[in-house]
Amino acid sequence: MKNENDLIKMNLEGVRMEFPSQKPIILLKEETGNRFLPIWIGAFEAYAIALELAHYKTPRPMTHDLIIDILNSLNVKVDYVCISDIIDNTFYAILTLVRDKQQKINIDIRPSDAIAIAVRSKCPVFASVEVIENAGLTITTIDEEVEKFRDFLDHTNPDDFGIK
Amino acid sequence: MKNENDLIKMNLEGVRMEFPSQKPIILLKEETGNRFLPIWIGAFEAYAIALELAHYKTPRPMTHDLIIDILNSLNVKVDYVCISDIIDNTFYAILTLVRDKQQKINIDIRPSDAIAIAVRSKCPVFASVEVIENAGLTITTIDEEVEKFRDFLDHTNPDDFGIK
Repeated sequence: MKNENDLIKMNLEGVRMEFPSQKPIILLKEETGNRFLPIWIGAFEAYAIALELAHYKTPRPMTHDLIIDILNSLNVKVDYVCISDIIDNTFYAILTLVRDKQQKINIDIRPSDAIAIAVRSKCPVFASVEVIENAGLTITTIDEEVEKFRDFLDHTNPDDFGIK
Repeated sequence: MKNENDLIKMNLEGVRMEFPSQKPIILLKEETGNRFLPIWIGAFEAYAIALELAHYKTPRPMTHDLIIDILNSLNVKVDYVCISDIIDNTFYAILTLVRDKQQKINIDIRPSDAIAIAVRSKCPVFASVEVIENAGLTITTIDEEVEKFRDFLDHTNPDDFGIK
């Protein structure tokens, strides 16, 4: 795990479909800076994130809801998730759990699962300085881009991800 | 939770695509009887089950692999999963975990997630007597049907589920 001093707090700006690839993408933004981190993810995980952002409650627990249910049943808390590395264009992340209010447990995780868990547990999302320096993008027309993402979220529905 | 005496041990015969609906289906069979339980599931969960049955290791942990990693990290064992109820044509299941070799914890789960976890943890799969009596099917040409499922599994690949 990275030194916690080297972590940058990120906010999730949204999840959207990228054209023409039609692959879903999540966009994280530095909380106190203007660098963005775009991460391509799978359709199912995008759907899991979008459902929660839309406050949509499915009749039965979806897979990421189940993870939260398991952790709650075991009295284990999600401390934070962190986009820790980028190797050969693949982002790596870490899920940090806390048991008995003190014992920290780090688990290797994909960024998509990390964000799907973060939006459900309301835990903070970090990225390592190294990841932001290597893969962070400064978008000059930030307001416009963010507006596009918000607009997408407002108008998205599960069908957009090809899964019903 | 059902009385454990009312549980029937089931074996997973396979996961296949049903035509013309093109919806994935899992087929469970009584270990000591000839009743089958067909359960329609989502494409992503079918993919997660099929990957494990094919012993395919993805480069990064998929969502159900993550669940196993979380449980292992917390020294929690999967005791068994059980298809416990059928209400309004929806199957309900229970995931039973064991902590500290004695404390049992029951968690509400969809059958698809239950089977995806069962194939990874090698835990037993049960169904309640009530579910088998209400939704079990006796297939007279069992050998032929099972052969079809085995053949499907032998020739399946991730593309069959529309997810790459």
